[in-house]
Amino acid sequence: MKIDPLSGRFEGPLHLFAVRAYYEDTDLSGIVYHANYLRWFERARSDMLRSLKIDQREAIEAGEGAYAVADLHLAYKQPARLDDDVLIESRCTQAKAASVFMHQRALRDGTQLLAEMTCRVGFVAPDGRPRRQPKAWRNAFATILDQESSA
Amino acid sequence: MKIDPLSGRFEGPLHLFAVRAYYEDTDLSGIVYHANYLRWFERARSDMLRSLKIDQREAIEAGEGAYAVADLHLAYKQPARLDDDVLIESRCTQAKAASVFMHQRALRDGTQLLAEMTCRVGFVAPDGRPRRQPKAWRNAFATILDQESSA
Amino acid sequence: MKIDPLSGRFEGPLHLFAVRAYYEDTDLSGIVYHANYLRWFERARSDMLRSLKIDQREAIEAGEGAYAVADLHLAYKQPARLDDDVLIESRCTQAKAASVFMHQRALRDGTQLLAEMTCRVGFVAPDGRPRRQPKAWRNAFATILDQESSA
Amino acid sequence: MKIDPLSGRFEGPLHLFAVRAYYEDTDLSGIVYHANYLRWFERARSDMLRSLKIDQREAIEAGEGAYAVADLHLAYKQPARLDDDVLIESRCTQAKAASVFMHQRALRDGTQLLAEMTCRVGFVAPDGRPRRQPKAWRNAFATILDQESSA
Repeated sequence: MKIDPLSGRFEGPLHLFAVRAYYEDTDLSGIVYHANYLRWFERARSDMLRSLKIDQREAIEAGEGAYAVADLHLAYKQPARLDDDVLIESRCTQAKAASVFMHQRALRDGTQLLAEMTCRVGFVAPDGRPRRQPKAWRNAFATILDQESSA
Repeated sequence: MKIDPLSGRFEGPLHLFAVRAYYEDTDLSGIVYHANYLRWFERARSDMLRSLKIDQREAIEAGEGAYAVADLHLAYKQPARLDDDVLIESRCTQAKAASVFMHQRALRDGTQLLAEMTCRVGFVAPDGRPRRQPKAWRNAFATILDQESSA
Repeated sequence: MKIDPLSGRFEGPLHLFAVRAYYEDTDLSGIVYHANYLRWFERARSDMLRSLKIDQREAIEAGEGAYAVADLHLAYKQPARLDDDVLIESRCTQAKAASVFMHQRALRDGTQLLAEMTCRVGFVAPDGRPRRQPKAWRNAFATILDQESSA
Repeated sequence: MKIDPLSGRFEGPLHLFAVRAYYEDTDLSGIVYHANYLRWFERARSDMLRSLKIDQREAIEAGEGAYAVADLHLAYKQPARLDDDVLIESRCTQAKAASVFMHQRALRDGTQLLAEMTCRVGFVAPDGRPRRQPKAWRNAFATILDQESSA
């Protein structure tokens, strides 16, 4: 009676994750509501962390801190519609002491570009202040970046 | 470079679908926000329709109509938390000319009951009035119900 | 340069709160997505608590606990559409040591019934277990209920 | 028994609109989920259009088209928390035949900058293609921009 929730995977330094557009994602103009791409991109980043054995919930519950988006640039290219299968590609482009830079794309059927985002995600303490991310986390990103440069 | 979005499947008359709890699903009390179970249950119903070869988007775009929830009873048993793997079980309990009755459950790791819902979903014309659902759709549900009674 | 966010008010024991349907609330069938009524009803309950001088955030941050919906019955009567002005009426029907019973209605332009809900909201400790609500909170609800019975 | 939903207002070329942070807006890290600022900013833009007598729903239902965000840059400065009163300031910075440029800010209590966005919103036909916006709409924005330059 079990069924596994969808997990993404890395292909080299590129993380792949799939979503599908449901009623909740659309608005009355018939297409996916613009804010919902941020939810899809966040799911993909969370899955990426999970693949890297980074346990966000543990860090939050231990009072260490959490990642928070610091800024983002998002360009919409084609609208997504109900039932579309959308591939989310995520790539870490830089990892610093307290923040990580990402480039993410949403592609219908893995080919047609729907939206593209660059963002900076910072690690923040429970009081909201920037904090150095756990060393193991930074190392995990460094490993991806090494793969990238040697690719 | 492709990756398939998660699809559910039937085990006899019971439809199984998996979700995972992401940041977007939680609220500041640390658990999944109560309204978001309705989004999970709706995804599962949409996947059930998809498995039955019912194309909701086509019916909406053709101006035929869409399913809309008419009423529901939802009981919360245990809270879901970030990263929880949640199985959504859906069962059609009755199919009428213009509506379908469902019973749905959310189970952490496929075993611990988190929430349980019964609902009636009606087929409605674009003007909002109840309408008989397409015959092929009703037949699809009838087939499940036959399986149920012969199980 | 200031502008006050909308607050509701009590008329006797009945709490009144207004919302408007925005893009985010609708789905591709052109009407308000069924789960979003729960968000509207929750805003109204939060505003009710605020009017009663109950500070939810303080209670959560102090680790005392939070209200969580335990079960609900929701009936959809008419669909809401973009730009509709919707009045949320909320009435406390019973207050117990660890839970509160509510009856809530959504009315377009204050007159046409869109949806109606009864629910039980329980007070829960951070570990998820039911807990007696703070005495001042229970007293606040008792005061409303007295008004009700003497009305 | 009526209560009016909150409407914003113009102060010269600047549009002011108020929101409050509810449970639905927060996530388990205790702050407003980053995607929800886009919902707040969209509500303010919709209210701005409403103030300018632009009827979005009519245009969608008549098959004329709708505004859709084409790209955006969003910077998060301070986190918002439950119950925060947030002022949304919106300013049209340029109006072209098929698109409008906006600058929007979210300020706690009207003073503390929480987030800031610039975006381009395009008018699109139901098939998703860019289309010239209705002349009356473009004129409405031109009037604001005149106020701006003469201020």
